[in-house]
Amino acid sequence: MSAASHPVIDPVELTRDLIRIPSVTPADEGAMDVLERALTGLGFHCRRMKFENIENLYARRGTASPNLCFAGHTDVVPTGSTEAWSSAPFEAEVKDGVLYGRGAVDMKGGIAAWVAAVSQILAEGDVPGSLSFLITGDEEGPALHGTKRVVETLMAEGEAIDACVVGEPSSSQHLGDMIKVGRRGSLNTWITVHGKQGHVAYPDRAANPAPVMAKLLTRLNDQVLDEGYPEFPPSNLEITTIDIGNPATNIIPAEAKARLNIRFNPTHTGDELMTWLNAMAGEAQAASGLRIELEHLCSGNAFLTEPGPFVTAVQDAVEAATGRRPEASTTGGTSDARFIRAMCPVLELGLVGQTMHQIDERVPVWELEALAGAYRRVIETFFDRT
Amino acid sequence: MSAASHPVIDPVELTRDLIRIPSVTPADEGAMDVLERALTGLGFHCRRMKFENIENLYARRGTASPNLCFAGHTDVVPTGSTEAWSSAPFEAEVKDGVLYGRGAVDMKGGIAAWVAAVSQILAEGDVPGSLSFLITGDEEGPALHGTKRVVETLMAEGEAIDACVVGEPSSSQHLGDMIKVGRRGSLNTWITVHGKQGHVAYPDRAANPAPVMAKLLTRLNDQVLDEGYPEFPPSNLEITTIDIGNPATNIIPAEAKARLNIRFNPTHTGDELMTWLNAMAGEAQAASGLRIELEHLCSGNAFLTEPGPFVTAVQDAVEAATGRRPEASTTGGTSDARFIRAMCPVLELGLVGQTMHQIDERVPVWELEALAGAYRRVIETFFDRT
Repeated sequence: MSAASHPVIDPVELTRDLIRIPSVTPADEGAMDVLERALTGLGFHCRRMKFENIENLYARRGTASPNLCFAGHTDVVPTGSTEAWSSAPFEAEVKDGVLYGRGAVDMKGGIAAWVAAVSQILAEGDVPGSLSFLITGDEEGPALHGTKRVVETLMAEGEAIDACVVGEPSSSQHLGDMIKVGRRGSLNTWITVHGKQGHVAYPDRAANPAPVMAKLLTRLNDQVLDEGYPEFPPSNLEITTIDIGNPATNIIPAEAKARLNIRFNPTHTGDELMTWLNAMAGEAQAASGLRIELEHLCSGNAFLTEPGPFVTAVQDAVEAATGRRPEASTTGGTSDARFIRAMCPVLELGLVGQTMHQIDERVPVWELEALAGAYRRVIETFFDRT
Repeated sequence: MSAASHPVIDPVELTRDLIRIPSVTPADEGAMDVLERALTGLGFHCRRMKFENIENLYARRGTASPNLCFAGHTDVVPTGSTEAWSSAPFEAEVKDGVLYGRGAVDMKGGIAAWVAAVSQILAEGDVPGSLSFLITGDEEGPALHGTKRVVETLMAEGEAIDACVVGEPSSSQHLGDMIKVGRRGSLNTWITVHGKQGHVAYPDRAANPAPVMAKLLTRLNDQVLDEGYPEFPPSNLEITTIDIGNPATNIIPAEAKARLNIRFNPTHTGDELMTWLNAMAGEAQAASGLRIELEHLCSGNAFLTEPGPFVTAVQDAVEAATGRRPEASTTGGTSDARFIRAMCPVLELGLVGQTMHQIDERVPVWELEALAGAYRRVIETFFDRT
């Protein structure tokens, strides 16, 4: 293919085209089609993977090694009150050099910037290897039928990806000031203490679950899980709710419920934390005589892409493009990078995330163009060094 | 007045007349009129006292000392699902020797039994003193405009009552096995811990109120308030609810609420317990940096009618009538006796309370008649000994 056969794509216009499609998770509404058309026009072989009601796309250009992948999602979180927005959330209006809309930074802007970067490179030549996209419509929701299943499918087929950039809004204050090279694991645990209801005037005939819950939660909360792990903050437990819902002032309640979330570094695994929680609950049950039930849901263990050539290449490229050397961080919530880590080194590089998930999500136009430039430099540096 | 001029009143028929009036608190529906007619027929001077929307009655027969009072209430608690009743709750049906209906034991049956006892005595003679009734329509509700205000009014006027029997269902398993000579005080406290909402992944930017609440509640619950007081069990604190209501697994909540109830013996006063709770909350606030608010509502301090001639006279009379010497107890919930204690020695003597406030509240017909007999013996013994 000659360079001239490909269009150069404007990152702002492609972001606007994507924002105009209200792909509130898990709805697709045609967002994946918009992306597929752009990539087909750039010579990518596009393969749609539908799992349950979720649209996913794996697109690859070329067959040679190495294969540098870009990963992201076209679904967005709900808008909240549309009347509270300065500009309607799916209009993609540009005002005073700023593009408003749901998904502007998380992460339709990131996708469009990488597509634009690829188009700029192809307008002048080609890369000595392959480029690919792994895009899902199920990142903001339960994430059960998105990246996780695409990765499982690709691994089962023997598809090789050598490195991956996830386009999540990783920057903290300024574009390029931070990349994410790992994330903590996350465990939710639901606790139920079963007591026996009765009148407060006759406590001997009842068994109050509330103090048993309060004491157990205090013990769990006071536990130091660890002092941290290289590249990670200490693991942290938060009590996210406690609920009894007893309206009667003279009644000892029958049942108390609570929920914890633990964000944990690689010192721990979800299984080991569940075992610890079960043991603590078992002790509280033995001490109180009240039955205590736990339910756990681990949405991912901690992962880390260790310092190495890939991380250094990306840091060098971002510094060259933005004048700012990004900190390699492991803070923040989970992302689909945790699934991709099974295949290859992975990191997150994208826009400043300050307005993500908020009313008036927005990105300056210059920042989208600058991100496309930084992505271009990342691609070039990656292929220069491998 | 000659003995022959008064009718002898059947306790079962008067109970049925009262049950047929659906005087669900605070409604009267004419219940006080039924009672007033019966008492007027027995030569009582009836004085109605209406405070706000509440009907109250103070009736006295005679002007001489001593004045033995009977106290009670004509209001009843709601029926719950009427379909769940074996017999409609305001039909007052007798089946197999058992009278069904809301208020049968708490406490229209008690009122009717005392009226019947008085009528039996008057049919044969008179008492060397006065008999009186202090009846309210606001015992099962907030109790703000009932016995409390009648007592205040009578005391302001200098009215003397020398002893009082409250007709609450005091018996535990068998008629006459228990009288109540005091009650614990009751304090409700609402606790709010104000934190700062945030994402669980960034705990440093939030302040979680849940562990502060859990720790404070644990400290309060672990406190031994006292080891008991003569005639009373130890004071007791129960956590009656804890509520946060946070549906989001990834959010640290802004606020946690809880409520306590303390039932306390005369070791404590409500004011002193509030001071203690405020101090404990103050320490938790200082330690956590989170604002903690308390609201208190003390519905009554503890009271006690000490052992003495009145209590002994009642115990002797009940034993003579039923063959069972009643235990003098201070267990159970609050009653209007706490207000009357300001005027005179007071105790509670009434039916077996097992079905009170329940579906199918009921009393065996023989038990109503036996209670009238016991009450008659109490009145006779009181006047014999004073």
